[in-house]
Amino acid sequence: MEKKERPLILVTNDDGITAKGIHSLTLAMSTIGDVIVVAPDKPQSGMGHAVTIHHPIRVTPAEVPYAQKAWACSGTPVDCVKMALYNLLDRKPDIVVSGINHGSNSSINVIYSGTMSAAVEGAVEGIPSVGFSLLDYDLDADFSASQKVAIEIVQKVLSDSHFPEHVCLNVNIPKGPSVAGIKFCRQAHGMWVEQFNERIDPYQKKYYWMTGEFVVKDKGEDTDDFALKNNYVSVVPVQFDLTAYHALTHIQQWEM
Amino acid sequence: MEKKERPLILVTNDDGITAKGIHSLTLAMSTIGDVIVVAPDKPQSGMGHAVTIHHPIRVTPAEVPYAQKAWACSGTPVDCVKMALYNLLDRKPDIVVSGINHGSNSSINVIYSGTMSAAVEGAVEGIPSVGFSLLDYDLDADFSASQKVAIEIVQKVLSDSHFPEHVCLNVNIPKGPSVAGIKFCRQAHGMWVEQFNERIDPYQKKYYWMTGEFVVKDKGEDTDDFALKNNYVSVVPVQFDLTAYHALTHIQQWEM
Repeated sequence: MEKKERPLILVTNDDGITAKGIHSLTLAMSTIGDVIVVAPDKPQSGMGHAVTIHHPIRVTPAEVPYAQKAWACSGTPVDCVKMALYNLLDRKPDIVVSGINHGSNSSINVIYSGTMSAAVEGAVEGIPSVGFSLLDYDLDADFSASQKVAIEIVQKVLSDSHFPEHVCLNVNIPKGPSVAGIKFCRQAHGMWVEQFNERIDPYQKKYYWMTGEFVVKDKGEDTDDFALKNNYVSVVPVQFDLTAYHALTHIQQWEM
Repeated sequence: MEKKERPLILVTNDDGITAKGIHSLTLAMSTIGDVIVVAPDKPQSGMGHAVTIHHPIRVTPAEVPYAQKAWACSGTPVDCVKMALYNLLDRKPDIVVSGINHGSNSSINVIYSGTMSAAVEGAVEGIPSVGFSLLDYDLDADFSASQKVAIEIVQKVLSDSHFPEHVCLNVNIPKGPSVAGIKFCRQAHGMWVEQFNERIDPYQKKYYWMTGEFVVKDKGEDTDDFALKNNYVSVVPVQFDLTAYHALTHIQQWEM
């Protein structure tokens, strides 16, 4: 059965609507369907699943090449998805696509990342969703390999009528002109070992910059971290039921 | 074997260091161990797992009754935990306790909640952690029943040498002077159906307030939502491995 309508694709990110990554993703997605962009009006990296409830939110029409329509939003990446679905779009998109992020969102970074939280929010809404990240923080990174990956994966998701409900994909792409292939993985167990860089302001008051080193102790060869280290694209399916079922069995034995 | 030292308890929240909920929790925890408070200097509800990487962070010594030491921190709840562990505390706390939140964090709210994200961050660090929330948004809510619950659960966690690693507890407490008991649950499947309240500012520009209705379609009797509706305290063990293992099996069959 042929679809008459082109798919409607909602694009967002956390680096902001002017980032090269979202422009690259918009162009790639425009080869598949009609693209609407609703993205933060400023960088919102590390915003996790934050929502704006104590401040008003503003949206402004914007121009993004290859998008049918675009809006800059003053809120977080998750706000952008909510604003698009509940206030801006005429119909439910067929897919929510977030990125392409400037920098990795593998392993534990999925919980800190605004890019991935936007994709998770799509999944909460029952819409297939994918977050893309390139392992290159450069503002002028080369997204051409990532664009091919994004097209391939989004086409796969759109054509899979049994794509699991309430799941999104966390796709990370190695830096460089070509990749070894695609691996379907679990999230590696990793964490940030932080360092607070202490400074003194001109008024003699202390302030800190949070810096850190990302450490993965997980030795598994089935993880996103392992795939990326071997120049493979990593694809981790992500859910939002945080229940630790194994722990539930344990604490149910407590006598209270 | 008797412990010589009193447990060291790190207390934080997302309503801010002046909230009644964190003062109630600090008092309750001081009956169990030595309490250090590191909490946001202003309300940080709905901040999810946000971290502050593009702005400096400041900390200021504060006074919180029954705490051995306290600091107000300009960052998010997750920043507070990182700042405490990597910059302020002399030793690793035995437990991280977050709350008592003014309002529910059951079901999907776990991913939006700064209070719960602080507890998750404790779990990432390998420290047993618990987030407490009372189903009452009143600034002057009665936390006396919640304090009893908090003492009981924290004592249980501290005395359980087999408490699962990298897990925290999401504890929600019904409003009212007494509760029917405690239920160990899974996270109910629910979501916010949003409404954007449109207004015009004095300069003739539109702005929006995000408002919403929380909807739980999950009919399970093993959920936190069901427990709370029946006046039980709900306890959900929470993990940060977001891998959707059931979906991994499905997408591994894709030909790519």
